[in-house]
Amino acid sequence: MSSSNKVFFGELFDAASGSYKSYINGQWLRSCSNKVVTITNPATRKEEFKVQACTREEIDAAYEGCTEAQKIWRQVPLWKRAEALRKVASVLREQRDTIAECLVNEIAKARKDSLSEVDRSADLIEYCAEEGIRLLSKGDFLTSDAFKGTDRTKLCLSSRVPLGNVLCIPPFNYPVNLAVSKIAPALISGNAVLVKPPTQGAVSGLHLAQCFDKAGVFPKGLVNFVTVRASENGDYLAEHPSNNCLSFTGGDVGLSLAKKVGMIPIQMELGGKDACIVCSDADLDLAAKHIIKGGFSYSGQRCTAVKVVLVEGEVADQLIEKVLGGVNKLTVGMPDDNCNITPVISETSANFIEKLVMDAKEKGAKFLTEYRREGNLIWPCLLDHVRPDMDIAWEEPFGPVLPIMRVSNTDQAVEHANKNRVALQSCVFTKDIEKAIKISDSVQSGTVQINGAPARGPDHFPFQGFRDSGIGSQGIANSIGMMTKTKTTVINLNSPSFTV
Amino acid sequence: MSSSNKVFFGELFDAASGSYKSYINGQWLRSCSNKVVTITNPATRKEEFKVQACTREEIDAAYEGCTEAQKIWRQVPLWKRAEALRKVASVLREQRDTIAECLVNEIAKARKDSLSEVDRSADLIEYCAEEGIRLLSKGDFLTSDAFKGTDRTKLCLSSRVPLGNVLCIPPFNYPVNLAVSKIAPALISGNAVLVKPPTQGAVSGLHLAQCFDKAGVFPKGLVNFVTVRASENGDYLAEHPSNNCLSFTGGDVGLSLAKKVGMIPIQMELGGKDACIVCSDADLDLAAKHIIKGGFSYSGQRCTAVKVVLVEGEVADQLIEKVLGGVNKLTVGMPDDNCNITPVISETSANFIEKLVMDAKEKGAKFLTEYRREGNLIWPCLLDHVRPDMDIAWEEPFGPVLPIMRVSNTDQAVEHANKNRVALQSCVFTKDIEKAIKISDSVQSGTVQINGAPARGPDHFPFQGFRDSGIGSQGIANSIGMMTKTKTTVINLNSPSFTV
Amino acid sequence: MSSSNKVFFGELFDAASGSYKSYINGQWLRSCSNKVVTITNPATRKEEFKVQACTREEIDAAYEGCTEAQKIWRQVPLWKRAEALRKVASVLREQRDTIAECLVNEIAKARKDSLSEVDRSADLIEYCAEEGIRLLSKGDFLTSDAFKGTDRTKLCLSSRVPLGNVLCIPPFNYPVNLAVSKIAPALISGNAVLVKPPTQGAVSGLHLAQCFDKAGVFPKGLVNFVTVRASENGDYLAEHPSNNCLSFTGGDVGLSLAKKVGMIPIQMELGGKDACIVCSDADLDLAAKHIIKGGFSYSGQRCTAVKVVLVEGEVADQLIEKVLGGVNKLTVGMPDDNCNITPVISETSANFIEKLVMDAKEKGAKFLTEYRREGNLIWPCLLDHVRPDMDIAWEEPFGPVLPIMRVSNTDQAVEHANKNRVALQSCVFTKDIEKAIKISDSVQSGTVQINGAPARGPDHFPFQGFRDSGIGSQGIANSIGMMTKTKTTVINLNSPSFTV
Amino acid sequence: MSSSNKVFFGELFDAASGSYKSYINGQWLRSCSNKVVTITNPATRKEEFKVQACTREEIDAAYEGCTEAQKIWRQVPLWKRAEALRKVASVLREQRDTIAECLVNEIAKARKDSLSEVDRSADLIEYCAEEGIRLLSKGDFLTSDAFKGTDRTKLCLSSRVPLGNVLCIPPFNYPVNLAVSKIAPALISGNAVLVKPPTQGAVSGLHLAQCFDKAGVFPKGLVNFVTVRASENGDYLAEHPSNNCLSFTGGDVGLSLAKKVGMIPIQMELGGKDACIVCSDADLDLAAKHIIKGGFSYSGQRCTAVKVVLVEGEVADQLIEKVLGGVNKLTVGMPDDNCNITPVISETSANFIEKLVMDAKEKGAKFLTEYRREGNLIWPCLLDHVRPDMDIAWEEPFGPVLPIMRVSNTDQAVEHANKNRVALQSCVFTKDIEKAIKISDSVQSGTVQINGAPARGPDHFPFQGFRDSGIGSQGIANSIGMMTKTKTTVINLNSPSFTV
Repeated sequence: MSSSNKVFFGELFDAASGSYKSYINGQWLRSCSNKVVTITNPATRKEEFKVQACTREEIDAAYEGCTEAQKIWRQVPLWKRAEALRKVASVLREQRDTIAECLVNEIAKARKDSLSEVDRSADLIEYCAEEGIRLLSKGDFLTSDAFKGTDRTKLCLSSRVPLGNVLCIPPFNYPVNLAVSKIAPALISGNAVLVKPPTQGAVSGLHLAQCFDKAGVFPKGLVNFVTVRASENGDYLAEHPSNNCLSFTGGDVGLSLAKKVGMIPIQMELGGKDACIVCSDADLDLAAKHIIKGGFSYSGQRCTAVKVVLVEGEVADQLIEKVLGGVNKLTVGMPDDNCNITPVISETSANFIEKLVMDAKEKGAKFLTEYRREGNLIWPCLLDHVRPDMDIAWEEPFGPVLPIMRVSNTDQAVEHANKNRVALQSCVFTKDIEKAIKISDSVQSGTVQINGAPARGPDHFPFQGFRDSGIGSQGIANSIGMMTKTKTTVINLNSPSFTV
Repeated sequence: MSSSNKVFFGELFDAASGSYKSYINGQWLRSCSNKVVTITNPATRKEEFKVQACTREEIDAAYEGCTEAQKIWRQVPLWKRAEALRKVASVLREQRDTIAECLVNEIAKARKDSLSEVDRSADLIEYCAEEGIRLLSKGDFLTSDAFKGTDRTKLCLSSRVPLGNVLCIPPFNYPVNLAVSKIAPALISGNAVLVKPPTQGAVSGLHLAQCFDKAGVFPKGLVNFVTVRASENGDYLAEHPSNNCLSFTGGDVGLSLAKKVGMIPIQMELGGKDACIVCSDADLDLAAKHIIKGGFSYSGQRCTAVKVVLVEGEVADQLIEKVLGGVNKLTVGMPDDNCNITPVISETSANFIEKLVMDAKEKGAKFLTEYRREGNLIWPCLLDHVRPDMDIAWEEPFGPVLPIMRVSNTDQAVEHANKNRVALQSCVFTKDIEKAIKISDSVQSGTVQINGAPARGPDHFPFQGFRDSGIGSQGIANSIGMMTKTKTTVINLNSPSFTV
Repeated sequence: MSSSNKVFFGELFDAASGSYKSYINGQWLRSCSNKVVTITNPATRKEEFKVQACTREEIDAAYEGCTEAQKIWRQVPLWKRAEALRKVASVLREQRDTIAECLVNEIAKARKDSLSEVDRSADLIEYCAEEGIRLLSKGDFLTSDAFKGTDRTKLCLSSRVPLGNVLCIPPFNYPVNLAVSKIAPALISGNAVLVKPPTQGAVSGLHLAQCFDKAGVFPKGLVNFVTVRASENGDYLAEHPSNNCLSFTGGDVGLSLAKKVGMIPIQMELGGKDACIVCSDADLDLAAKHIIKGGFSYSGQRCTAVKVVLVEGEVADQLIEKVLGGVNKLTVGMPDDNCNITPVISETSANFIEKLVMDAKEKGAKFLTEYRREGNLIWPCLLDHVRPDMDIAWEEPFGPVLPIMRVSNTDQAVEHANKNRVALQSCVFTKDIEKAIKISDSVQSGTVQINGAPARGPDHFPFQGFRDSGIGSQGIANSIGMMTKTKTTVINLNSPSFTV
Repeated sequence: MSSSNKVFFGELFDAASGSYKSYINGQWLRSCSNKVVTITNPATRKEEFKVQACTREEIDAAYEGCTEAQKIWRQVPLWKRAEALRKVASVLREQRDTIAECLVNEIAKARKDSLSEVDRSADLIEYCAEEGIRLLSKGDFLTSDAFKGTDRTKLCLSSRVPLGNVLCIPPFNYPVNLAVSKIAPALISGNAVLVKPPTQGAVSGLHLAQCFDKAGVFPKGLVNFVTVRASENGDYLAEHPSNNCLSFTGGDVGLSLAKKVGMIPIQMELGGKDACIVCSDADLDLAAKHIIKGGFSYSGQRCTAVKVVLVEGEVADQLIEKVLGGVNKLTVGMPDDNCNITPVISETSANFIEKLVMDAKEKGAKFLTEYRREGNLIWPCLLDHVRPDMDIAWEEPFGPVLPIMRVSNTDQAVEHANKNRVALQSCVFTKDIEKAIKISDSVQSGTVQINGAPARGPDHFPFQGFRDSGIGSQGIANSIGMMTKTKTTVINLNSPSFTV
């Protein structure tokens, strides 16, 4: 175990097993399983942390705690729920260094980006608290006489009520931010939550749990963080009869979960092969700047990373020169040094990336940078003349590798983009307003960015994927909508009601 | 085959096989399966109609037609889509007698109610057309500077776009109205539809298909009505990769479909054990009137039928006297005679009802009316002193049988109501405003009616079930919402945008 | 009197006085004033019609009729109000030729445009009916616990209720369309209306009144059309204590009315000096096409006419050549011949236009076309090198005269546009998306059209002027909003209400 | 001058003249007028404070400051505007004792209520900041193809933009809270403000100004507090050409201001003769409790005070006994002692109240309490058997005097209530849900409270008066709506846009 984690010792750490406890029913729990899951530091490739592999009984207990706590919480006035969330945000800001340290060691995210993830998470919680106050205190008041043949004798009051228990499964790349983007809307809406942190990111998640605990304002059992072996108990968590909602961000496992959960609301984001279309009239400096940022931030391990560039042939050389210039300036190294490119999340991931690169090489892609890898650290790699027969034209590398495809015209670019299986976002660079809108119309992805790289935020914008990229729309208001259901009360009157 | 159906001969009838064709890709199709499904007239208990059992290849063809037609339709201006739907409504009004005749013979619905179902369906289509124009021409225009730390350099345009193909599965009890309540929102939203009519009600459905055909305003393939053997090809329809949405009304099969369809939006309504709570201060005449109407309309074969009465003991005798008075006035007989009580949908159904009645008898329920059955015709049956150990306290008879439970107080009533598995609607009779609202708050069903029987309409009100009763909310606006998805375009600017 | 109006003889015509009656309290009224207002045909410059100058007592009677009728009307279910309005639309479509004939003779509008005005008015009524159904059946249902320190013991139901009587004053240029754009939202909202038609356009207005009468579906007195001498009784109408709302379209008299009406909602549109900014990167063919249409439709007598072109110097010559080419193709003549340019509304108006032209001439504007006038007919006139010291740079000619100003850059163009007193709409032609949005941000007018001429429609878009151009926003939904007021009912509870 | 004000010495106090300065253009200004307005302590009836009577030139300067500052402020991102407002709220909380001290001495409000006014004001500012972020970052995105005959070639982006300068005139009874309820929505919307504090309450207002100053986050000139002699310069402030909006709370002077301000948005609340209808089935204890609180809080000097009780005869005696019991428990005395009843605002006011009481006495009202007055202190006075011929049946005493009228039935009560000139709120006590709704429907006041006293809050509820009681609706969201205007940008396209 590295020395760095010594700072985390405390109630959430079980010295006996050298592992982190789960947070169930308001208690830090050492699992009866006596099994642990180990977390390897992507940078050192050594074991960094251990978390416990909870049992089905413990999962049952967590859900039971949810169910009881939710009965109390749903009766708490909105402004008090909001105040409780703001308290969490405040504790989270206090804990920013501690949690960022976890992120650095668990997922090799550059320190400054790790700090920024925590800060933005606190902002999100606060925004969500205020949004929920408004969305949940305002329903519809409908009268019956809109419909043909109907008197005004029915007054319908429509509210949004909580679903009950929400299972939150965030991914490794934003284990804190994508946890709170699920937890905060769930809580303000009056739900309880059970969070299953990603393996890589679990300790960050448990420190987030600690913030909820320290806030000291929630009913015992309302918020639970349960670490499990996903292969053993992932489905059990999702299929559980006490699970009333699934909010999941991750990969293709989401597709199979969707079939397992049954008749409950699901919100899923399963990645994106985000295309960047560069038109011949584009501001190429702007495009290049966004391609570099969009393609290589956090080493390309983002759902909204630019994952393929589709450039009109006549400006391809100019664009590529500018992009390459930027790529060459990227720093490569360790997260603690705030390098632009840091080791990817795991050896499996690095191997997958390498396979895509080698396939492209064999099939004749032109390497604008030399391919280089040390352990999990892969140097930024820019590929030109990528063609549809190469796997990298279709697959997400989730690493610092960016394929460029030259197209004859924008129609061809749109056609390629629309064959992507995971259609999260895309972007187009052009100065022309008509062209921008028409391409945005034609590209079938959840969002089309005009003259900017794909991006999840700001967090009040809707965020959604098409095709296999997901279901439901995120963004704070949409998540609150999804984590509640409509309930109506109809007042029937003996004679018509006309307010005058 | 009865003589009554001769009026339907025509293009949609295949004389050779004596069966009705499916409507696929703009054609009346005789299936290659050479298999038919027979439809028994519930009143005569004789074979009334035959429809074809389409094959998987034919289902594939229907979906393919959908996909192609939808590419055209989604580009049609909203006002033209609305005009097309109004055309259908107009044809439907012309065909009201023909279709009502089918309903009488297929599902034994009283003629006047059958006519009313058709009329209300035309109204629904028209309302939906106008609603869609508004909902779909109005998205959000968001600026980025609401979120902390963000400049106003991103303008987000949010639209609702069609899902693609919508599979519509209506139930037997409203085979026309609950078909159009799915088809109309799907179409105005820019989707194609594949309708699988219920077996009982299939011929009514095919005549509805004919209205779409006669309207002559839709791209070929946009609207398909496909009859299948549900046991053979029901799942195939739902799991089809070209199916982008499922709107289902029916029974528990919905629960299993929910697990099969994968990551697509689903809207389901699976029945309701609707409780009627009568408080001691209620207007008992009003309550009795609504209980009779709510319990026995269409012989109780409605999701929103009153399915159990929970009355405070002190007024139970008075209430029962009034209800019984009303029950005794119900006419019993054939749909053609516009009787209140007509034969239930099938022998299976009649047997199920009888089983519930007999179970109650054995366990000591008091029969306020004599139980009587002839074939599928069951006389209205009022049971007093029903207790929780009787199956009829929990199951939906879907027939003219109404159990009454006496409770000590409203808390006990609420407790019983909240144990129902299928929590669609409920109602409470009380004059007291505070009591009305508190009971409405406490009862966990999709809708609570105060001083009125449960009811689906008017069709612009939200309509939803809790627990196993369904997912998603219906009502015209909600259905349009559910049959579309959010797409956003973000305009990124180099410097902030402040409209002045 | 010309022979053309013989077709209008009937109930609304008083043969004795040779004048048209007013429509008050469901009756066609011959005024006791024995005074008439004469209407001169702009084309023939001869007296075409006479209408009566109603007295104050008759105005009182009209308002009294409104007040009584409104008490009935506000209790009519929304769908029935909508049906009544659709009936009017239907009658209006039947009367299209008759009313268009009036428009041709009263305001010299080309026949095809007159017909189109009537058709579009019927469309507007229908759209408004459906919009009102929705807006007025849907209020807010608010809970108290959003606000700090407040329990959830207050439920607030918020409705929109009618104002009472709405005074509608449409202008001469669209005496039918701008009447119904006020009447229809007023009526669907549950108000009564008193319409004061413009002098020029009064007979068209009275024929519109006839449509309401013929529809036969409104309470007597709900809709009144009262012709008066504006100088005598205009203020009396507006200041009347029974007037609860003023919707006015016209000129500067609106500013003084605003000070007279007191504490009632007002909606005003008082004209616009709409600027057209042409950037150097614009599609000049597109710009020229829109400038011609925008500048010369209905001889420039439109609030949303292009009233000054501000073109970047480097493309001015090219643009002007294209505009001039189009201007030279405009046909000039009589409305019956469907000419593009027809006589302006009055001699006063023609003289005013001429004064502006002569002022420009004296101060050195370059005439791209020769100035020519015969009676009220003014040939299209294109002026180049217009400078800020010329009156035509600032004043609305409301005639077929279009000044062009050459600017060094778009900042200068925006600066000029922002000095306009009546800031209704403006437009900018550029291909560049960033430039388009930034100019739209900077120009302070109610609407900025990008790459299109200013336009009021489609009628569901918001429509408003800044500075002296008006107050309130029109467009169907906004007008309904403005013609209703919020009423709230708050249900206070003894203990908190939490729907579960 | 009393010693109490020594605590306020500082920058805002001009020692030379012994008077408080105005806050103009970011400076504490001693007026050139050399005139002061004196403020008499209602309790001591001695001069307590002096403020300066600013000149027209100083008013011009303040508006000029507004105009310049607003140009900067409207470009500030929403989240930064919100942060600035939260800063003010924080300073206000720090200054709560100081400001409450002013309130005690200027308007004789009980100390605890004075503190509460300040606290609630800070809450309001915070709520408003968050509300504005949401309302102002979310406009409509409309497409043209909703309207018949129109292609989807126009995309309309609709925003709310600031009006410019907002004149805020709060009343004496809530000089802090009703100032911030105008200032906060104005500022978050991007406007500048000029506040004219009430004479009585001016020093509290100036201390509020100091909070804005101390916050140190607004452009110089954005917020101005200008004290004037209302008789000299009140109209000048309102009619000023740089005034773009008037938000006024006060008395009948509002009616004349409405005629003076011209074509700008106005929001007015001019008092209420709030009726309390008590039905024979009401919970009389509840009703009595609310009548006492509603009638006598802040000695009845509230717009939403219960100003007349209309009770059904059969329960009148019982109700009166309960009310009288409560009235007899009210403490009477000085604000510093937190008495329930404190001196009314001025001798003029006390005399007016006395006149109403004497009129009632002469005409035969029955005094349930003895009328007693010492200086401005009037003992709570309950009058029974008040009849329509007494002035107190119609006038607002704005003092601790409550008239009770006995009615035969609720229709009679409603009739009386609907004759009130100033129809702000009303309330009805009944248990019956149908009766509650029907009476709420029939009473024509801005709000009808069911089973609760009239109340302005919570501040997110709409708040409005009918007839002469005002125009426009307040409540935080409505005020933001009223202090902004719609601006639209329409993107015209060459070919239709269909997002897919």
